[in-house]
Amino acid sequence: MTDVDFCVVGAGFAGLTAALRLKQAGRSVAVLEARDRVGGRTFTVTRDDGLWIDRGGAWIGPGQDRIYALMQEFGVPEYKQHNDGDAMMVVDGKKHRYGGKLPWTMSPWAVANVGMGLMSVEQMCKSLPREAPWEAKEAAEWDRMSLGDWLERNVLSRPAREMLDMALAGPYTCAPAEVSMLWMLLQMASAGSSTIGGPSFVISGKGGAQDARPVGGMGAIYRPIVAHLGDALQLSQPVRQIGQDADGVTVRSDGLTVRAQRVIVTIPMAIAGSIDYEPMLPADRTLLNQRMPGGAIIKTSIIYDEAFWRADGLSGQSAAPGTPATLTIDACTDTGNPGIMCVITEGVAARQLARLDEADRKAAVVGQLVDRFGDKAARLLEYHEQNWTTERYSGGGMISHTPTGVLTEYGHALRAPCGRVHWAGTESSATMCGWVDGAIRSGERAASEVLAAVTETATAATT
Amino acid sequence: MTDVDFCVVGAGFAGLTAALRLKQAGRSVAVLEARDRVGGRTFTVTRDDGLWIDRGGAWIGPGQDRIYALMQEFGVPEYKQHNDGDAMMVVDGKKHRYGGKLPWTMSPWAVANVGMGLMSVEQMCKSLPREAPWEAKEAAEWDRMSLGDWLERNVLSRPAREMLDMALAGPYTCAPAEVSMLWMLLQMASAGSSTIGGPSFVISGKGGAQDARPVGGMGAIYRPIVAHLGDALQLSQPVRQIGQDADGVTVRSDGLTVRAQRVIVTIPMAIAGSIDYEPMLPADRTLLNQRMPGGAIIKTSIIYDEAFWRADGLSGQSAAPGTPATLTIDACTDTGNPGIMCVITEGVAARQLARLDEADRKAAVVGQLVDRFGDKAARLLEYHEQNWTTERYSGGGMISHTPTGVLTEYGHALRAPCGRVHWAGTESSATMCGWVDGAIRSGERAASEVLAAVTETATAATT
Repeated sequence: MTDVDFCVVGAGFAGLTAALRLKQAGRSVAVLEARDRVGGRTFTVTRDDGLWIDRGGAWIGPGQDRIYALMQEFGVPEYKQHNDGDAMMVVDGKKHRYGGKLPWTMSPWAVANVGMGLMSVEQMCKSLPREAPWEAKEAAEWDRMSLGDWLERNVLSRPAREMLDMALAGPYTCAPAEVSMLWMLLQMASAGSSTIGGPSFVISGKGGAQDARPVGGMGAIYRPIVAHLGDALQLSQPVRQIGQDADGVTVRSDGLTVRAQRVIVTIPMAIAGSIDYEPMLPADRTLLNQRMPGGAIIKTSIIYDEAFWRADGLSGQSAAPGTPATLTIDACTDTGNPGIMCVITEGVAARQLARLDEADRKAAVVGQLVDRFGDKAARLLEYHEQNWTTERYSGGGMISHTPTGVLTEYGHALRAPCGRVHWAGTESSATMCGWVDGAIRSGERAASEVLAAVTETATAATT
Repeated sequence: MTDVDFCVVGAGFAGLTAALRLKQAGRSVAVLEARDRVGGRTFTVTRDDGLWIDRGGAWIGPGQDRIYALMQEFGVPEYKQHNDGDAMMVVDGKKHRYGGKLPWTMSPWAVANVGMGLMSVEQMCKSLPREAPWEAKEAAEWDRMSLGDWLERNVLSRPAREMLDMALAGPYTCAPAEVSMLWMLLQMASAGSSTIGGPSFVISGKGGAQDARPVGGMGAIYRPIVAHLGDALQLSQPVRQIGQDADGVTVRSDGLTVRAQRVIVTIPMAIAGSIDYEPMLPADRTLLNQRMPGGAIIKTSIIYDEAFWRADGLSGQSAAPGTPATLTIDACTDTGNPGIMCVITEGVAARQLARLDEADRKAAVVGQLVDRFGDKAARLLEYHEQNWTTERYSGGGMISHTPTGVLTEYGHALRAPCGRVHWAGTESSATMCGWVDGAIRSGERAASEVLAAVTETATAATT
């Protein structure tokens, strides 16, 4: 039995940051992490020669002030994402190479459709109260509609629908029919500044969500936190039970029992729902935990001698809806050498790809790259694949979403503490929901909550 | 360590029937049930004087051949539901008393809307392939639309929408915006005969889903099965882990370890998802388990000296969308004495009602009954409430649903065995999905599956 002020469940960025802030406030903490590694849905692997690969969340951008604050705290510099050269869009097997934000060569009709779709979404985001989108005037209407349904009714060109689906629902890595329109708007709005809002941030490389990366990858940020936490962090401890009583909480993993005043649960909803809570959580939270599934995603990092696409005038960014290489993006380190190409396979395509054996999977992905970037793409040095769908303690990737009808019914339960059980995780963040920055914000918010709660209790006891 | 031919997880009707059929086939079985009782989402309480109350699933109807077969097997007679007298519909606080199927006094416009809505649904059901509705020509269209969205777009009268919501989405006990149109159609179609299909069965008392009840309640059927199973049934054994290897499965609860050739998991998806599978289930099943939430429902049984509403020419059936007594129905035993009124509180109303303390909850429900049935409704003898939402091992009630986009993506995983792990439960039944009869069918289907699998293995071994 370990006795501490606070317990934190999960050592992704939400949990690590919460624990860091609590320790910095002079409190004792125990962090229980189910895996044998930290990072959650980020995961940086560093080779002996110093080359690093981000196998999970990797990019950062303007407005993500809290991750920049952590980077400053630990002296981690950023470097800009390689964005020079043309991008590529593959529609029905045909490649469209383009500069700027939209593939004008595709078809003026399709591109106009994409533009109008984005403008509509931008407009809807503007009226959304960020802290409580479920209270928007149009919330009921937007929440009973799936993104797939909205696209079908409002965007006439099929290639345009596919592009918008990838742009708007990419992070959920599932069919657009699964995602509530209101949830998509929530996430888009959470990424904008208070005046602009909307999807431009999400779809933009430069100045957007793929603007830059930390030198050394996400691991360069989480490793110093781990060092700071010392033996407060316990790996390979999947939490099975959380009990609460009048005086505190008892958190049990397979090997440890932690007694604390309060606990912060930072793991994805679908996984949080499999913990045994004693007494049970309030009905709204229990039902919400059943209602925020993860998606299917495989992230593959392929190492080449050099970033040959750059010499060919290509940025390395490409999109091909429904294929085994749904998205590609240049993922070189700050030195630009060797060449690292990141391939993201999403949704249905990821589930299909996962059913193949490893050799066939590799052939399918590399085949796509050869088709897009030429024969040089076949001459790879290393192939690293990370199937987030089968990460037991992530419950899928990239992030969770709400299906239709859930936010208007249960949105209020996203952040509300249940007695001594508090919640963090990027999905609970009103700002930068779905990004690493949102995870960090949620951890800091939850740390403030538990600190305020014990201060109130202490004050009440002395008056 | 118990060594048996087959293990069954859950002792609701699906699990009990599966185990019964396996024992009858001469196999050894271990049934692990998490609760200290059997019955799952059915639960019959019998007083010392013999009076019984069904606190969960209760009614049966034509076409439910497999529950009738079990009743015949164990000599349980049926009795017809009391259906004489007028029903009542409460809209915006105004009571409409009516005979027949629809409240014509309400407003011809609203009633016409209800009729047209039901006809549309009936029509859609006809083209649905019952075993695989996700393969229907219109599947993608119907699955990306929520029932709430469909009602909003196709039914112009608000009271009509509310009535249709109750009729069509009642069993999911959540907002209509949460339910995929295709799932609702699947359930409706599963209830009809192969030629008619559709919602008439669901909304009908006489000749429909509330046509009759077993004398003695559901317990009169499950108790003889329990007796037959003897010590093969183990209560208070929540299963935490299911491992499978080349030779069999290892099922671990808090207190027991069972080794078997195969296991049948019969518990609701949201609960099945919290078991630790080793190795992990295939991605499609893992993700499906995250995508079939339960709803909120409180079922209250109120005992009176006599069924006073009958003397007043009322059937006892009433519907009042959004109120603490969403539905009422005469729930007397076969003797008709004493009077038992069943009150069902669904969805948002159930979650609101659950937040009150017990006295206020009782006052709210009884207040509704007084308003509908007069002062006699206040003179109650006993008040029994069953909040299925907080049943830890049901994960909510009445049954699970799929949100939009799930059936077309994951429907194929509803029944597909995952190696040595087989699936049952009413939601997995292509016929009478959502009823006790569907649970029984699913248990019998899963029992056939595991028997066939070991026969194949035995044959392969000898040839």
